[in-house]
Amino acid sequence: MTEKDDRWMSSITEIGPNKINVRGYPIEDLMGNLSLAGVLGLLVMGELLPPEAERVLDAVLVSSCDHGTSPPSALAARIAASTGASLSASISAGILSINRHHGGAIEGCMRYLLEVDDRVDNAEIKPEDAVAAVVEEYGRARRRIPGFGHRLHSQDPRAVTLREILAEQNLYGRHMEALYLTEAALKEESGRDLPLNVDGAAAGALLEIGFPPEAGNVVFIMSRVGGLSAHVAEEIIRERPMRVIDPRSAGYDGPGERRLDRGNDP
Amino acid sequence: MTEKDDRWMSSITEIGPNKINVRGYPIEDLMGNLSLAGVLGLLVMGELLPPEAERVLDAVLVSSCDHGTSPPSALAARIAASTGASLSASISAGILSINRHHGGAIEGCMRYLLEVDDRVDNAEIKPEDAVAAVVEEYGRARRRIPGFGHRLHSQDPRAVTLREILAEQNLYGRHMEALYLTEAALKEESGRDLPLNVDGAAAGALLEIGFPPEAGNVVFIMSRVGGLSAHVAEEIIRERPMRVIDPRSAGYDGPGERRLDRGNDP
Amino acid sequence: MTEKDDRWMSSITEIGPNKINVRGYPIEDLMGNLSLAGVLGLLVMGELLPPEAERVLDAVLVSSCDHGTSPPSALAARIAASTGASLSASISAGILSINRHHGGAIEGCMRYLLEVDDRVDNAEIKPEDAVAAVVEEYGRARRRIPGFGHRLHSQDPRAVTLREILAEQNLYGRHMEALYLTEAALKEESGRDLPLNVDGAAAGALLEIGFPPEAGNVVFIMSRVGGLSAHVAEEIIRERPMRVIDPRSAGYDGPGERRLDRGNDP
Amino acid sequence: MTEKDDRWMSSITEIGPNKINVRGYPIEDLMGNLSLAGVLGLLVMGELLPPEAERVLDAVLVSSCDHGTSPPSALAARIAASTGASLSASISAGILSINRHHGGAIEGCMRYLLEVDDRVDNAEIKPEDAVAAVVEEYGRARRRIPGFGHRLHSQDPRAVTLREILAEQNLYGRHMEALYLTEAALKEESGRDLPLNVDGAAAGALLEIGFPPEAGNVVFIMSRVGGLSAHVAEEIIRERPMRVIDPRSAGYDGPGERRLDRGNDP
Repeated sequence: MTEKDDRWMSSITEIGPNKINVRGYPIEDLMGNLSLAGVLGLLVMGELLPPEAERVLDAVLVSSCDHGTSPPSALAARIAASTGASLSASISAGILSINRHHGGAIEGCMRYLLEVDDRVDNAEIKPEDAVAAVVEEYGRARRRIPGFGHRLHSQDPRAVTLREILAEQNLYGRHMEALYLTEAALKEESGRDLPLNVDGAAAGALLEIGFPPEAGNVVFIMSRVGGLSAHVAEEIIRERPMRVIDPRSAGYDGPGERRLDRGNDP
Repeated sequence: MTEKDDRWMSSITEIGPNKINVRGYPIEDLMGNLSLAGVLGLLVMGELLPPEAERVLDAVLVSSCDHGTSPPSALAARIAASTGASLSASISAGILSINRHHGGAIEGCMRYLLEVDDRVDNAEIKPEDAVAAVVEEYGRARRRIPGFGHRLHSQDPRAVTLREILAEQNLYGRHMEALYLTEAALKEESGRDLPLNVDGAAAGALLEIGFPPEAGNVVFIMSRVGGLSAHVAEEIIRERPMRVIDPRSAGYDGPGERRLDRGNDP
Repeated sequence: MTEKDDRWMSSITEIGPNKINVRGYPIEDLMGNLSLAGVLGLLVMGELLPPEAERVLDAVLVSSCDHGTSPPSALAARIAASTGASLSASISAGILSINRHHGGAIEGCMRYLLEVDDRVDNAEIKPEDAVAAVVEEYGRARRRIPGFGHRLHSQDPRAVTLREILAEQNLYGRHMEALYLTEAALKEESGRDLPLNVDGAAAGALLEIGFPPEAGNVVFIMSRVGGLSAHVAEEIIRERPMRVIDPRSAGYDGPGERRLDRGNDP
Repeated sequence: MTEKDDRWMSSITEIGPNKINVRGYPIEDLMGNLSLAGVLGLLVMGELLPPEAERVLDAVLVSSCDHGTSPPSALAARIAASTGASLSASISAGILSINRHHGGAIEGCMRYLLEVDDRVDNAEIKPEDAVAAVVEEYGRARRRIPGFGHRLHSQDPRAVTLREILAEQNLYGRHMEALYLTEAALKEESGRDLPLNVDGAAAGALLEIGFPPEAGNVVFIMSRVGGLSAHVAEEIIRERPMRVIDPRSAGYDGPGERRLDRGNDP
């Protein structure tokens, strides 16, 4: 078709009168049948995720929804909001703070896991030997393996739960395996506990469902929009403009611990 | 507690060693049990949405996930990406373009619906009379009622489907009713069809599940993160840097129409 | 010209082969003859500023170049930089924090001064009576007049110096006069000293050179780019990623006070 | 000082009651004596630029103030503005589009020139031989040397004028020399004219005044704030919200060519 020469092409969504087909699927079919997680999977991968993978992705998205007042993204969003920035500008200030050092450990750990995987595939060695070799290489290059250790959590509840959900959905595979082999190798190497954190577990989960490392930050950014919005709203409602936002002096005065009781629902 | 005087307080997420409680709920309870939509509801409202409302919110989020290459947010994200911006910077450029005139019709229509609702409550008049009165007022002030009419869609499939989903979940109430009364009133007033569009239907749906108008753009922003990410990825993979991005000459070369076949799953 | 119907028009810069005319002036004429301040004047006003006005604008731009580590824009830029954001993304996070409550007092004070001016013109009253009337109105509406008082500076050296520069350039006029009448009126009304600050003095200066209030934040944003860049560079060079940036615990370890000795130059 | 242990340090601006010392210089000394360009130099370098270097920097800042409607930064700023974004959010959307492929050629060319310079210093070879060697290396690696050639300008008037200004200020040195040696080498190598463009000339000028390559984009970003602001204002004043902004169909309807006539002033 000669017309194509003059046009640039997109393969994401086909738009026509009363037609919105996302990666080919009519939007009205997606609504009610897929969660936002499922649609994110469709947008990133180009194909539908199996329902088990969609559930895993939804759990990853939930796992990083907020981490209180201390993350840089929450502080940047609050600072912008306290000067009178709009909602979208405040959220953008937050998202601009999601990069290699904040959120980026997901992608970093995914790349580490793919290095291990390459080694297993190409050198035909056992996973534990591949892990040992790559851990040793990182150590020699004085590179930290992203996704292990946490300033606050000695056993990150999000990592533990992601592991369980992957097992439940029959998606606990070689990447998750490699994470726990890495945990053991790091302990042996350093003598210290560097337990798997939420970023590492998310990295394993995303690889198990077929996501590429480039999509690691996409997941984290979507995950945090709700939390950032809550911080922006709270800053506007509860605080005076231009206050000094001191991250060291924040307290919590929300509801005490309560349990979810939804039976098997939803 | 005297300590409180020196600290600023947040009621969103309680953080402690191995503890992340979002609005009081341990994150490990939320993961696997709530969708990201459910967590957004919890973050925005402070309380769990009933499962029916969570499904409605998920459908609203899915409905606005992408609308091809023409929306300002997609173009701004692509432009930034084409200059070498990072993922988070490109997505931010897109989100900075979500404001009153793009996405903002959800909030605008929610405010309109609340004006109608106030009238019904306070003047004790019938809904159709309240609608007629507010429509007439907007007309006199030469204000457009947001959420009706679409450049391209004479019957917006997303609006139709949201209506059905609200009915299925027993959440079709007075706000949705007011939307269709408005559609009729606008036709009578102007002689033209100004059918409910996705923003209007989302406005009704969000009010039915208890969301405040301020949260309208939060929903739209979260919804679009996946679409914006797909545009950024596509721009980087398929196009050369610094090309002229002409919104009038874009074509679609993705998969042809295909149907979702998931049985009753998920 | 029929062609015009299909094109959208800009009156800023004419571009052609080897031709870049800004508001009609060849860029090669502007370079070396105008300062960046002069070009900002040309871009904002559409016409060249007289040299005296250009010098005043340059002084306004210099006056707000930086204010240490505590302003929200500096903190937001540092936070983004500490997560690995690029220079342009970090500066953007800073600029997103320049709004009504940070920088916006320039525009707010310009609007106040125009209200005073309108009163003088229309009611044909003396400036001191116009000031008294508008100050009283603001008081009744419990609105603060922007541009007066400072958390730290009892006599803002930038306001004092701007006044002198306006006098030197023969541009000290009715708007500056109104500022000092306002200072006196505020003292009489409240019993407290609320001395003119840099934002107020900048507001007066910008009106004296013909700038509209909408341009107040443009001046502040351009002014701060250098300061924000220095903070971003310093954060990257001196600090470790993802540190807790506590605005209350910052110190200064740069050069001690030194004097500019440039004779009559430049 | 033990206190230092708990504080983080900045060497940019010392703030105290009625004291604002930028890199040690009282702000009231800088105002009226330095241009914004001079203050940018002080902020970036930590020391005052000589007056000649300040004039060169001002000319570089003027040279990139705007380039009409087609640059990505202008389009992104206009798109954001057309959706209702604030001034600071629209300018941020523009700045987020200043990266490696837009504006970044200044830094890229500075790095190239430093490679040439290293070669001259270390290998004690003649500049033309150093240029030939580095050009050949770039060619072998299929890397473009940034700063040469322009889609539209066969002889970029900004590059020509910067050369003249550097000569006038006695700052035309080895880096500028290397640029013209490179121009010749590129012609010999490729047979095509790839004349020095504004980014290349700015790169040479910034090295001549001692700027590091990291500061290349700082200069470009400050330079463009005025142009971006003019585009945002024009979009809001002249256009309707949410229009399709087609970069290919823009025209110019501003003032015709006119000459600057300021005598020896300013």
